[in-house]
Amino acid sequence: MKVKTPRESLTVMTEIVLPNDTNNLGNLFGGQLLSWMDRCSAISAHRHCKKQVVTAAVNNVSFNQAIPIASIVTLEAKVSRAFKSSMEVFVDVYVEDQKVDGKRTYTNEAIYTFVAVDEFGSPVEIPAIEPQTKIEKMRFEGALRRKQLGLILSGKMQPNEATELKALFMED
Amino acid sequence: MKVKTPRESLTVMTEIVLPNDTNNLGNLFGGQLLSWMDRCSAISAHRHCKKQVVTAAVNNVSFNQAIPIASIVTLEAKVSRAFKSSMEVFVDVYVEDQKVDGKRTYTNEAIYTFVAVDEFGSPVEIPAIEPQTKIEKMRFEGALRRKQLGLILSGKMQPNEATELKALFMED
Amino acid sequence: MKVKTPRESLTVMTEIVLPNDTNNLGNLFGGQLLSWMDRCSAISAHRHCKKQVVTAAVNNVSFNQAIPIASIVTLEAKVSRAFKSSMEVFVDVYVEDQKVDGKRTYTNEAIYTFVAVDEFGSPVEIPAIEPQTKIEKMRFEGALRRKQLGLILSGKMQPNEATELKALFMED
Amino acid sequence: MKVKTPRESLTVMTEIVLPNDTNNLGNLFGGQLLSWMDRCSAISAHRHCKKQVVTAAVNNVSFNQAIPIASIVTLEAKVSRAFKSSMEVFVDVYVEDQKVDGKRTYTNEAIYTFVAVDEFGSPVEIPAIEPQTKIEKMRFEGALRRKQLGLILSGKMQPNEATELKALFMED
Amino acid sequence: MKVKTPRESLTVMTEIVLPNDTNNLGNLFGGQLLSWMDRCSAISAHRHCKKQVVTAAVNNVSFNQAIPIASIVTLEAKVSRAFKSSMEVFVDVYVEDQKVDGKRTYTNEAIYTFVAVDEFGSPVEIPAIEPQTKIEKMRFEGALRRKQLGLILSGKMQPNEATELKALFMED
Amino acid sequence: MKVKTPRESLTVMTEIVLPNDTNNLGNLFGGQLLSWMDRCSAISAHRHCKKQVVTAAVNNVSFNQAIPIASIVTLEAKVSRAFKSSMEVFVDVYVEDQKVDGKRTYTNEAIYTFVAVDEFGSPVEIPAIEPQTKIEKMRFEGALRRKQLGLILSGKMQPNEATELKALFMED
Repeated sequence: MKVKTPRESLTVMTEIVLPNDTNNLGNLFGGQLLSWMDRCSAISAHRHCKKQVVTAAVNNVSFNQAIPIASIVTLEAKVSRAFKSSMEVFVDVYVEDQKVDGKRTYTNEAIYTFVAVDEFGSPVEIPAIEPQTKIEKMRFEGALRRKQLGLILSGKMQPNEATELKALFMED
Repeated sequence: MKVKTPRESLTVMTEIVLPNDTNNLGNLFGGQLLSWMDRCSAISAHRHCKKQVVTAAVNNVSFNQAIPIASIVTLEAKVSRAFKSSMEVFVDVYVEDQKVDGKRTYTNEAIYTFVAVDEFGSPVEIPAIEPQTKIEKMRFEGALRRKQLGLILSGKMQPNEATELKALFMED
Repeated sequence: MKVKTPRESLTVMTEIVLPNDTNNLGNLFGGQLLSWMDRCSAISAHRHCKKQVVTAAVNNVSFNQAIPIASIVTLEAKVSRAFKSSMEVFVDVYVEDQKVDGKRTYTNEAIYTFVAVDEFGSPVEIPAIEPQTKIEKMRFEGALRRKQLGLILSGKMQPNEATELKALFMED
Repeated sequence: MKVKTPRESLTVMTEIVLPNDTNNLGNLFGGQLLSWMDRCSAISAHRHCKKQVVTAAVNNVSFNQAIPIASIVTLEAKVSRAFKSSMEVFVDVYVEDQKVDGKRTYTNEAIYTFVAVDEFGSPVEIPAIEPQTKIEKMRFEGALRRKQLGLILSGKMQPNEATELKALFMED
Repeated sequence: MKVKTPRESLTVMTEIVLPNDTNNLGNLFGGQLLSWMDRCSAISAHRHCKKQVVTAAVNNVSFNQAIPIASIVTLEAKVSRAFKSSMEVFVDVYVEDQKVDGKRTYTNEAIYTFVAVDEFGSPVEIPAIEPQTKIEKMRFEGALRRKQLGLILSGKMQPNEATELKALFMED
Repeated sequence: MKVKTPRESLTVMTEIVLPNDTNNLGNLFGGQLLSWMDRCSAISAHRHCKKQVVTAAVNNVSFNQAIPIASIVTLEAKVSRAFKSSMEVFVDVYVEDQKVDGKRTYTNEAIYTFVAVDEFGSPVEIPAIEPQTKIEKMRFEGALRRKQLGLILSGKMQPNEATELKALFMED
């Protein structure tokens, strides 16, 4: 299977924050953003492997700033690392305030994991990925550590087996 | 401020999986479930503190099984621990297959963090929580460890300051 | 077929009133509430009989108070009586105002009738019900009278054949 | 205030039954139809009185036939009688099957009651109505009987005070 | 195949402008109106030919006035001319302001072209149309000129072959 | 006001065709695509001028191929020419079939016109545009001809005044 680059799976989505997407303070619901990020990264995962993909996990997501009604939200997703049949996807979120000057600011990122499946829902093999840019390489490196963390948190791995992650706490 | 129990914030939501909520395999989108879980746990957080709440973070969520179209999905959320102005909420998800026998199975859990805010979006103080049942106590205990993990992952804490979490890797 | 209790069919739904659900005065559309009540009571009917159910009728529903935007609406449905293949379901509606103090008030009830059907849409037999609490017994008793009223209003029964209902007007 | 005819409040709505509107059997949810009927009759009530209107009650509605996916549903609403500040609206529902020959059949009717209110939600006076056709006259006559029934069912009137309705049971 | 009149395909749709349909100024999105006009004229085309129809083209549409939130929008569509398997449909849009006096004003028209297809998506023959009123005749006449314009704009016809259209520029 | 390039207003949107977006044949409604194209080009227009924009017109749009359910639809919009306060925007539509191999094909284009307005809805001046690429230059040139056509079709210009357009028919 041909190795691919993160760039080939780049997916851009643009959304407007409508009244039904907002809470009492007139800011975007976290759940609505989670849903958009899932959709954007699922398409990215699909573009990498050309298979049906299903969401396997969502990593720790932080919501750092309120996104007001009528904002234009841009999501950009790229596959950061491919394992045997699962992929990690990074999605970066930017906001333009439509009411004032259209200034674009970075708001947050999220990391989703998808599994490629066949028509019966069984996992299928996918192409490997070769990171190109500096940030793509950093994210590629971190993917293994995050995978271990996910396995520990779901009780599928013992902390002392997570060599990569353990090192993080030992270093000091 | 009066201490409260997790039970007082119990929130139950029941949803049916409709065609627009499903992918090509006829199974619920992960993003739709994330959105429902956010809404359910936000109402639970609101019930605990009677203030407007905003999503601050989502912890590692795993999707363990496919949820087919026409399933009845039940979500049950309870505040597991309250800090100064932030709360951790556990949401448990159950599914009944509507096509066959209505059998109910546990599918997955998620942990959301909310912050209580006033009308200008500034954090406000909230009541403490006193866990009652065995599982409520376990979740209460774990909350501090998860908070440290969140701070490390978002770069707001050094790994060696996370005493609770560090112990997890040292124990063996 | 095993007799069941109303409790076994209890279905709880929690909804937030969003901008698109409201009229010019910022209050919930009656039609949106009717739709939520139908969905909640349909799931309750399904839980009683574990069959596909279809709405057969809606009894007289009154809307006694306005439900403002951003309210949290809780619906609780239970089967009140089961006939051969049809069931009567009561749904009670409560509202918490999210803007002030989260105080919960009872707003109204509605009574729906469902028929259990097989995959071709033909009626199928369902379990009987045995009311337990005082209010469940009252609603069970009233169901027969309401059934007669429905048959008269749809022209399927003559007023003088409705013995239970007729008594109501004769008593004085 | 000028007396008006039912014709002046005629409101026609046409809807297509989409996948999300249907149950497992591929037929329209009762709750979705209730919501469409509410919207159509609310516009009709508004056209009669040119005021904001709120749903006060829904009379006994029967669902006599399944409406399959992709059907074209036509709703026609007219005010049948106006009281001081409340109106009764009849809505008739027709279905065309889009898959075969577009044949139109009558499926059911519903009767909604609306109250005209000012910007603070207080009832305001509305024009009287003068029925023109035979069916408009019949519906006008029946409105008083239905109003008494509604008052009895909601406990606001004693059965023996409902002279019009009582006669119905005495006639034989 | 029996010739039909435009009247037989008349389709009326009534919509309320909800918050999610509006931009920052509180006015209806052009795209939402385009979508409603497409749905209304598609049903009209279907009523003419009783076949599945697909949108082939939209002619130049002008949006002449802002339509504020809570307006009642009425759309009226009629087939203006039928060719071998394609139809031209005119849709007229009227608006009633619900906030003040319900006054109805004409806002704009649009012209859609549909093709009737069988279950495999292949074009099928449809009935001819015979205009009755003065405006129906005018629209029937103009249809040929608009068809030529569409063919030129999509590069399927040379300007000098468009005899009807060419005359328009030669007349002076 | 600083002159800008079309590139600065590039807007990319990615959508998945869901069941509710499709007709009986399982293909995307034309009206849904029109709505997506309007939203995408409106954001592009906004990015050019940083003002609120309203849809003024849609030029002749052709739908050349069916877009099946579950397709990934990518829309790319760029301002092609800016006049005093109005802009012409081209939107190109591409489709990837998600069911087979993700192959991307060009399906169609549309041309929308927007007007920049202030908070009271009055037109405001916008920056001029300077096309860079060959295709951007072609579209820039054609904009004037299309503007004349729009004015003629809406009766605001006589055919013999449309010098650019007239030449098209005279050339041969």
